[in-house]
Formats: sequence, structure tokens, C-alpha cells
Amino acid sequence: MKATQQEIADFIAAEFPQTRCVVREVVPGGATVVHPIGPDELRPGGTVSGPLLMAVADVALYVALLGAIGIVPLAVTTNLTVNFLRKPPADRSIVGVCRLIKVGRRQAVGEVSLYAEGKPDPVAHAVGTYAIPPR
Amino acid sequence: MKATQQEIADFIAAEFPQTRCVVREVVPGGATVVHPIGPDELRPGGTVSGPLLMAVADVALYVALLGAIGIVPLAVTTNLTVNFLRKPPADRSIVGVCRLIKVGRRQAVGEVSLYAEGKPDPVAHAVGTYAIPPR
Amino acid sequence: MKATQQEIADFIAAEFPQTRCVVREVVPGGATVVHPIGPDELRPGGTVSGPLLMAVADVALYVALLGAIGIVPLAVTTNLTVNFLRKPPADRSIVGVCRLIKVGRRQAVGEVSLYAEGKPDPVAHAVGTYAIPPR
Amino acid sequence: MKATQQEIADFIAAEFPQTRCVVREVVPGGATVVHPIGPDELRPGGTVSGPLLMAVADVALYVALLGAIGIVPLAVTTNLTVNFLRKPPADRSIVGVCRLIKVGRRQAVGEVSLYAEGKPDPVAHAVGTYAIPPR
Repeated sequence: MKATQQEIADFIAAEFPQTRCVVREVVPGGATVVHPIGPDELRPGGTVSGPLLMAVADVALYVALLGAIGIVPLAVTTNLTVNFLRKPPADRSIVGVCRLIKVGRRQAVGEVSLYAEGKPDPVAHAVGTYAIPPR
Repeated sequence: MKATQQEIADFIAAEFPQTRCVVREVVPGGATVVHPIGPDELRPGGTVSGPLLMAVADVALYVALLGAIGIVPLAVTTNLTVNFLRKPPADRSIVGVCRLIKVGRRQAVGEVSLYAEGKPDPVAHAVGTYAIPPR
Repeated sequence: MKATQQEIADFIAAEFPQTRCVVREVVPGGATVVHPIGPDELRPGGTVSGPLLMAVADVALYVALLGAIGIVPLAVTTNLTVNFLRKPPADRSIVGVCRLIKVGRRQAVGEVSLYAEGKPDPVAHAVGTYAIPPR
Repeated sequence: MKATQQEIADFIAAEFPQTRCVVREVVPGGATVVHPIGPDELRPGGTVSGPLLMAVADVALYVALLGAIGIVPLAVTTNLTVNFLRKPPADRSIVGVCRLIKVGRRQAVGEVSLYAEGKPDPVAHAVGTYAIPPR
């Protein structure tokens, strides 16, 4: 890996100061991030919003990519496709598990399975593309 | 239309109490929403985050759909695909203009062009699918 | 435009010798292509196959892009998202109408509405991304 | 599984008489299909076309779904998103490996990795959604 979990966590905290998403693990070709769920993330009826799931997918992809190519601040998401599969429960963190599918010189592609912590069936699935700036 | 702009705005405010997204217009087959941008929505360097753009797209689609089918609380996004096109400026609201492509009994599909207020070129484009519950 | 309709039609015929897709119109920022439907394109029951619709979308995007940037053989599709909306009738050509959303130096994005010739409601909608090689 | 590999192969051959795609394996929650590549599938320069890759992805998803829910002729693709990753070589079959992500009552979602036979890195990746008719 080109960056340690701590380096990536520090970078995410600096670049995305609003996010409450936490880096749990960075492995070769992938990463896991976790977002706590509290009153601020819930809609009436106790639903986790779709955009929050998309945000977790985006961070998971970015963390995995930074692990693979190092701290490259200018990498940007170019495409994100999300399928929403199940209503997440209101009382569990959202876990995003990213697996990189391709890391090229100019582009990277990865997929993310999103879970309610401790539950086996994914609540959403995302595929995202990153453009990597010339170095 | 099956719901007025005011009815839809009230419903969005109740269902998505965290969102700062405002309903600007609802027309047959479409809708426009606006999200103000301030320090809370910006990343270091003055970048509007991708997830915020996705959230605006999601609300624009939902508002347009409510205009077409009436206030149906259980309609849920099933798929959202976003292409990020340009870095939005830091000092302009994000405007989401939705056009519904199909409104069927069980499923609706729409596209959203996202702009920085007052700028002609879109900063992102989204296509989303909603599942409509049996009535 | 950077290439004429005839130049683009000749190029498509040379590059995609198997396709029966015909270039109908190239305009600034867009293009229309048409694919005839006969027994070879139909499944039992008279259904136009999904992959045929995707192929028409892909050609429509490519034709529009060539109109915008000139004959660039190495431009390649990097992402295509298709929503299938209605069963196309068995006896009408498929028309693909592409509108370019962004044409940048490295990447182009466009959307395509697919119709059964003469019918107002689209049978499918696609959004595609092209990578443009450095020149 | 709700249908055997032979039942599914027979059904695919009847429903998609034009396809040369062959069912190689059906397992719980997934399937593998293979499409031979010859002159008819190649563009000048020896490129496998994008639509062929999309067609293989579509068949792989359908085969996996039929394995999971039985022979349901009216299941239809509603959304397909494909990321093209690498130029496939001209002399190898295309293999589509599908893994179902969710099989619900009304909707199924799966992902497909597409390979050139014998090569480890995928040439494309697809995510697709199927609508399942009420039974």
C-alpha cells in the first residue's frame, strides 16, 4: 500500500471535516469505513437517508484508492452508481466495504457494499469511478 | 399535477428535516430545487462535496415525482447514477433541474441537471429510478 | 462541428462493419441514429433485445462525439448506464437521439433517448461517458 | 436452486436464439457464461465491441437470476450500468461471472465481472437490475 491507514484517516479528516465517517481498515485493493447513525442522520420513521449511504460509498472508494496510489488530493469522483437494496435499521452504523476493481494510471474503478453494522445482507451497493490526475 | 408546490415543500420539510434544499418550482413532468452553499457544505479549498450534489439530485427527483403522482410517502429511490462534470464554485447555490423520463405504475425514472446558480454549464448530471408502492 | 455527417457515417461503417445502425443527423451537441428492426433483432414474442438498445445508444453517443471533436478513433466508452422503460414494438426501427452534456479535453458525457420510430415515449434512456485520448 | 443448468441453457437458447453465449455454470447466487469471439464479434484492429460485453453481462445476470427464482420468462432488465476497464484481446472468449447481490420478490440486483478467458484482470464490470413479475 502507498499510504498507511493513519495517513489516510488524517487526510480524510482534513479534507472532509464535516464527515463523521471513520476509516476502519485499509487493505491491499480495498478498505472499510464506518459511519455512526444518530438523530442527525435519520429521517422521520427512522430511515437512514439515501444521500448518507452515497456519502459513505464515496468515502470508502476514496480511502481504498488512497491506499492503492498514495495521498493524491486531486483524485475526483467522476461517476457513482448506487443501487438501494433494503431499508437500513435506525440503530446501527453504516459500514462501507470497498473493493477496487481496477487502478489504472488515469482512472480507478471500485465497488462498495454497504451494510448495517452486524447484518449480513447489504443495504446498498455502489460502483464508482475516480479520475486520477497526471503525476 | 397531483400535488401543489406548497404541499410538496411542506412534505419535504417534514420528511427531510435535515435538508436545506428548497423547492423552487414544480411543473408538469419536472421540478427545480435549490440548495444554498455555505461553510458547512464546503471542503477545504472551497469544493462542494459530491454527496451534496447527489442529495440535491435525489430531492429534485422526489419533488418532481410527487408533483406527478401526489404525496406518496413510500416511494423510494432504487437506483441513482451521477456523473460529476465540473468543480462547482464555492459561492453559488446548487440548482437541480429534474425532468421525468417515465412515470409508470410501479416505477418512475427521471434525470437531473445540476448547476451552480447562474452558470450555464452543468456541474453534474444524474439519472434516478424510484419504486412506487402499490396503491 | 469538427466532422461532417458523411465523414462520420463513413467512419462508423468502417469501424463497426457489423452494425446496421445508420447516422440520420448530426447537429451541434448531438446526433440521431436509426437501427432497422427485422427478424435478426427480435427475440421470440417479438421483443427487441436490451443489448441492441445499448448498442444503438453507444453508436449515438459516439456519432455525437465525433461531430463535436472530429474523427478521433481512439475515443472509448468508459461507462454506460441504461434504464429500460418500455417494451419496444417489433415492427419499428429504434431511433437513438443523443445530446452531449459535456465535452471536455479528456472526457465527454452524453445522454441518449431511445424511441421506437414514430412513437413519442422513449423505450430506454442511456447516459454514457467517453475517454478522449490526449492529442 | 430453482432451475437446473440444463433447463436454463435450454431456455436461453429458445429465448435468445441469436446469442452465441453459452451457460458454463450455475451456482447458488451466481452463474458463469461464455461467449466465443470470432470475426463476427471483432471490429477493425481486433477490438471486441462494447455492446457484445454488455450482452454477455445481461445474459450472465439473467442466467444467475433464473437459477435463483426458476424459469420466469417475464423478468426484464430495468437498469444496466457497465464500466469498461481494459481492451479485450481479439483471440479469447469473453467470460461473464455473475454474483447476485439481492433477490427480492419484485426486484433482483447482481454484478458481473467480465474477463478475457484465462486472463486474471477484468475487461469490464457491470451491475444490473431485474424486475420480477408478480407471481
